[in-house]
Amino acid sequence: MSTKNKWLNRIKWDEHGLVPVIAQEVGSNDVLMFAWMNRDALARTAELGQAVYWSRSRKKLWHKGEESGHFQQVHEIRIDCDDDVVLLKVEQVGGLACHTGRHSCFFNKFLDGGEPDWIEVDPVLKAPEHIYKK
Amino acid sequence: MSTKNKWLNRIKWDEHGLVPVIAQEVGSNDVLMFAWMNRDALARTAELGQAVYWSRSRKKLWHKGEESGHFQQVHEIRIDCDDDVVLLKVEQVGGLACHTGRHSCFFNKFLDGGEPDWIEVDPVLKAPEHIYKK
Repeated sequence: MSTKNKWLNRIKWDEHGLVPVIAQEVGSNDVLMFAWMNRDALARTAELGQAVYWSRSRKKLWHKGEESGHFQQVHEIRIDCDDDVVLLKVEQVGGLACHTGRHSCFFNKFLDGGEPDWIEVDPVLKAPEHIYKK
Repeated sequence: MSTKNKWLNRIKWDEHGLVPVIAQEVGSNDVLMFAWMNRDALARTAELGQAVYWSRSRKKLWHKGEESGHFQQVHEIRIDCDDDVVLLKVEQVGGLACHTGRHSCFFNKFLDGGEPDWIEVDPVLKAPEHIYKK
């Protein structure tokens, strides 16, 4: 195997051949979303300079933005101290990472009241029917 | 079951009863670390106001900071649009989240040169032997 792939061999892929990935926005440092990559997805991400994930539901490579145009331009790729989590620093085209039309997927906040619950605290910036063309 | 636990039932726990957790620093928005929680860990985190994870290697609850004093004071708990990832916004006591003595666990950056590789780009702020008392 070429030494070109040494960096991919460093990753501790899980029992499904996947690694968890956190996408963080360059500048704001907002956490935009969480997804998974397999070896091909990470190699393709580095090659393309845009985030390519592994869709566990569709069981195929998922070039984020392929349907919405909301690509993620990758500025940095990092791994953690255990070599088993990837952090992408990205520029989010369109400003929307979430399929619900929100900036970030993490819009549900825990509210610890009499009846603890999750509350939607971030606005929908664009209706999904205007993001995904039929 | 009491309605007090409705918020815990909202989480889509994986086949091992776990959910991925991203810890992000309040203020800087730096991503500090990634870990896992089971139902007890998340309930305990909310109750205590400090991060309690599930250690997959030790197979027990892990109150982050119990050995180092570097607790994580929880300011916000969020979940994503699929209810299967938790984001904690924390104040990192001691400023060190990583067991290597670094601020963040994500100190290895991908460098795409002639031979692509991971480079340590963030400094060790405190030697681990001074963090973990024998």
